[in-house]
Amino acid sequence: MKNSAFQKILDETVEQARHISTGNVASYIPELTEISDSLTAVCVQMTDGEIYTSGDCDDSHYITLQSTAKLVLLIGLIEEFGEEQVFKWTKSEPSGDDFASIARLDQFGPVPSNPMLNAGAISLSSHIPGDTTEAHLKWLEYWMEKCFGTPLKINQKVFASERRTGDRNRSLAYLMKSTRVIEGIVDEILEAYFYLCSFEATVKQAAYLPMLLANAGLAPSGERILSRRTAELTVSMMATCGLYNESGEHLVRTGLPAKSGVSGFILAVAPKKAGIAVFSPLVNYKGTSLRGEKMLANIASTMEWHFAI
Amino acid sequence: MKNSAFQKILDETVEQARHISTGNVASYIPELTEISDSLTAVCVQMTDGEIYTSGDCDDSHYITLQSTAKLVLLIGLIEEFGEEQVFKWTKSEPSGDDFASIARLDQFGPVPSNPMLNAGAISLSSHIPGDTTEAHLKWLEYWMEKCFGTPLKINQKVFASERRTGDRNRSLAYLMKSTRVIEGIVDEILEAYFYLCSFEATVKQAAYLPMLLANAGLAPSGERILSRRTAELTVSMMATCGLYNESGEHLVRTGLPAKSGVSGFILAVAPKKAGIAVFSPLVNYKGTSLRGEKMLANIASTMEWHFAI
Amino acid sequence: MKNSAFQKILDETVEQARHISTGNVASYIPELTEISDSLTAVCVQMTDGEIYTSGDCDDSHYITLQSTAKLVLLIGLIEEFGEEQVFKWTKSEPSGDDFASIARLDQFGPVPSNPMLNAGAISLSSHIPGDTTEAHLKWLEYWMEKCFGTPLKINQKVFASERRTGDRNRSLAYLMKSTRVIEGIVDEILEAYFYLCSFEATVKQAAYLPMLLANAGLAPSGERILSRRTAELTVSMMATCGLYNESGEHLVRTGLPAKSGVSGFILAVAPKKAGIAVFSPLVNYKGTSLRGEKMLANIASTMEWHFAI
Amino acid sequence: MKNSAFQKILDETVEQARHISTGNVASYIPELTEISDSLTAVCVQMTDGEIYTSGDCDDSHYITLQSTAKLVLLIGLIEEFGEEQVFKWTKSEPSGDDFASIARLDQFGPVPSNPMLNAGAISLSSHIPGDTTEAHLKWLEYWMEKCFGTPLKINQKVFASERRTGDRNRSLAYLMKSTRVIEGIVDEILEAYFYLCSFEATVKQAAYLPMLLANAGLAPSGERILSRRTAELTVSMMATCGLYNESGEHLVRTGLPAKSGVSGFILAVAPKKAGIAVFSPLVNYKGTSLRGEKMLANIASTMEWHFAI
Repeated sequence: MKNSAFQKILDETVEQARHISTGNVASYIPELTEISDSLTAVCVQMTDGEIYTSGDCDDSHYITLQSTAKLVLLIGLIEEFGEEQVFKWTKSEPSGDDFASIARLDQFGPVPSNPMLNAGAISLSSHIPGDTTEAHLKWLEYWMEKCFGTPLKINQKVFASERRTGDRNRSLAYLMKSTRVIEGIVDEILEAYFYLCSFEATVKQAAYLPMLLANAGLAPSGERILSRRTAELTVSMMATCGLYNESGEHLVRTGLPAKSGVSGFILAVAPKKAGIAVFSPLVNYKGTSLRGEKMLANIASTMEWHFAI
Repeated sequence: MKNSAFQKILDETVEQARHISTGNVASYIPELTEISDSLTAVCVQMTDGEIYTSGDCDDSHYITLQSTAKLVLLIGLIEEFGEEQVFKWTKSEPSGDDFASIARLDQFGPVPSNPMLNAGAISLSSHIPGDTTEAHLKWLEYWMEKCFGTPLKINQKVFASERRTGDRNRSLAYLMKSTRVIEGIVDEILEAYFYLCSFEATVKQAAYLPMLLANAGLAPSGERILSRRTAELTVSMMATCGLYNESGEHLVRTGLPAKSGVSGFILAVAPKKAGIAVFSPLVNYKGTSLRGEKMLANIASTMEWHFAI
Repeated sequence: MKNSAFQKILDETVEQARHISTGNVASYIPELTEISDSLTAVCVQMTDGEIYTSGDCDDSHYITLQSTAKLVLLIGLIEEFGEEQVFKWTKSEPSGDDFASIARLDQFGPVPSNPMLNAGAISLSSHIPGDTTEAHLKWLEYWMEKCFGTPLKINQKVFASERRTGDRNRSLAYLMKSTRVIEGIVDEILEAYFYLCSFEATVKQAAYLPMLLANAGLAPSGERILSRRTAELTVSMMATCGLYNESGEHLVRTGLPAKSGVSGFILAVAPKKAGIAVFSPLVNYKGTSLRGEKMLANIASTMEWHFAI
Repeated sequence: MKNSAFQKILDETVEQARHISTGNVASYIPELTEISDSLTAVCVQMTDGEIYTSGDCDDSHYITLQSTAKLVLLIGLIEEFGEEQVFKWTKSEPSGDDFASIARLDQFGPVPSNPMLNAGAISLSSHIPGDTTEAHLKWLEYWMEKCFGTPLKINQKVFASERRTGDRNRSLAYLMKSTRVIEGIVDEILEAYFYLCSFEATVKQAAYLPMLLANAGLAPSGERILSRRTAELTVSMMATCGLYNESGEHLVRTGLPAKSGVSGFILAVAPKKAGIAVFSPLVNYKGTSLRGEKMLANIASTMEWHFAI
């Protein structure tokens, strides 16, 4: 039975968030700017399966996952190759740098700091099994479905836009190629990486993955989808690195390990309680949805959902 | 009633940890090198008050808190000045840098990245209430007693050693003075900071603070010692910044928000379950006790105490 | 009439340099490693046209110019576009960093520090006139002939090798593309840049350009080849930036503004007196020919050729 | 016999420079702001001894040398300890950083990049012979008189101001103390350093040192004041490092190796021809006198005094 008090909290949360008008729709992927900047939505899925939504949550709004999809890449590779192997391909340290920083990789590399940064995710993308882009895409589709409980589709326009404007990611990839952190053909690796970022989901669909993580890898039915250890590792990475150089401030503010994406999604985990997806395309210069953060802070504080208590 | 199975786990944990012989006793504070490097100890205090110890835990071994004392400074100031104020004096971001890094402060400062770094703790030390070193010391004693449930004493030899060898901290302090992040007399501020690091505790005493944090600020009796919010904020800071540039790796490894000190202490929080103090003076170049980390990883994995599950 | 005392100085200089056996043939361009590492040669061309050689200077040894060719690129563009324009495409500051540093470009860019670094030369390469690689190549051939007084040819094997192993340069180029410092197609720009580095010359041919610069742009005949201002600017750049993060040490050591190349060439200017080309493929990790530096230091000190006196 | 055409060039040079009104009087040493910001002056001393002045050059204006005094420190130590020793105390590389940069020292140190930076000059200050501040002061007075041909005095107000506001220099010094680059008592070393910067001279007096350097260490009378090698080394350091992170741009602009000071002095060397002192207190954020640079560029271009031709 649904809890109407909680529904009211969510409704008020969205209402308050709408007062924020700072931030901008990310412009470096031109296709992203086509979305209405007033969209504001939240979905909470309890670990018992109950789903609450508020705001612009109807099923017509598909939003690309962008960097929140890095969770899927990390999860798939841990499940298939094990943590020891994966954390040779990328370290697991917060870097203090922005999402696409090259400087640190050049000075302190060659291995990227963590899988939540572009560099780390590009390194991981080079290890997606398969010899062809088709095979890589299939692998991604498999893990998207596993993590979100439903098949997701690529937004081809965003994909094309990513590919057209991805010069900084090319720079990162060639730097890692030059230091032998990645092998293979850079264009093919980036093709997989750009596909990864271009999957799209509704806010409701998006809440399933953080719910899985909040539930130690189990579906609400009790069925094991991800191993407990995979869930642990992923939430650890979200806690320290999920919002780039705003991760520490975010954890102080909300107490909810999370992963942001420049499209305006934030996926957040309230351990043992719920998965939360918030969305609003107005992001700050660190790529964090400002209304999204406000909503998470409200929910965490009202519900006393800080991970530590 | 004590749980003998858990006692056995702790005993085995200490036994396994003793096999590690890498690491060195930190030498930059000469006084620290006088301790026997074979000492290895753990104390777990459950949130219900039950206490378990194993290894070299007898009450004759007093060890200086070093950087683990930064928790007390942060807690005292949050309790007295509020989070908004405190996080103007220091940011809350992991920096990717080592404990005494000056470079980032110079390039991206002037406000220090977080209160777990020397720079952040020195900035906070400048806000300890009181006009005299005596007053500062009294304030520290008050909060030590509050956080550890018993009065702690200064190790005067270590204090003298810190003061004699603290040139890097002086460099940090004068840099912050030059950018007006700190005001007042540098020598007096550092006096307070060196006192902070020189309090000493037994391993058993040390476990009380992480237990408090694991229990949302309540003593086992139910008495509120720290506000819930203070506990939340402190554990958030431990999760992202507690082991400097090993914080991310630590959280992946153990799932236990923690704070390390160069003397060989690590204080770790298993939310809602227990506070843990581990000790062994053999530290790596990042200042982390190697046997300590091994013990925490063992306990976390055996007890399934990852914060996310 | 030739000066036999000077010839003797050169012969002794080569002899002494041969005692140095440290350094390595640069391996990151595999084709470069095919050269005999014992080759050691010097050619001095006086501003009156007189030419002196010593060591392995016969005309069968063609060596690729590598980064010494950056001088030609800078000269050609200054002559055609003027200094004001060229120093918008690249700054003119020594950076303290190595030849292929990306970190600083990312942190303090977007415009490269100076035209002697790879980043600066890649930026300049994007402004070589012409729409096709053929046109770019023709432009390079024109300016090579102008600067060396004779047509130079491309070493196709080295070119292929550069192109195959140029991932770090690709990283630099894509980073500058992403910040709009360069426009156009990265592969075509790099094609021109790799051609630039792959021209080859004998040591005797190589001494002509520094002689021109030492003579304020005039051929020994008195014919003006380069404008006085172009010569001034180029020698200024050599003085502060010609040996990357060894430029300052080099100027202290020799007093001769110079440009090094990883193949083992150093071209050095003794203002009003002579141009010097030294060659030996054993380079240090900064890409400086060790025997080459020794020879320059000997000549400068024996001849009292420091630029300041 | 004086050259009236040259006098006219200087007069026009000052006139043109007066049109520049950008820049600010350096404020971080409060005492410096007491000077009239309209003062603009130039003095050129030919290597034959002839002296030309223009602008506000009368003998009532004493200006502190600030960083131009670092030349005297370098010269005195080279003369007494030899180049090999001095360049162990500081490297000789341009750093790409500003005058008081700490970041690079922390990341790439411990030895400072060059003696023209504060860090390098503080390191050198620790090697001024003598056990007392009186002895250090006497040493400085001796070398000031040697380098400027006349005794110079300390501006006590500026000295007090430097000492009061020198926290960044303290930070540098303690950092170098912590890495054992400097030994001894930081306060005493800085005392010597602050004295060094507080000597004052008229513009006319200031031109003597660059004239000496332009004349390979000889007084116009032919008397040897400094060794030829000391002159060479000093001019080399001025060429690559004399204006901090504007050194490269300056050498492109003027072709005159120089040293700037935040008081508004620039001392410049036209090898074999003349020493130049320019002064105007309006400096840019890199500490370079803007009118000063304009005057040097004018003189260099009109007189064809680029070091390379």
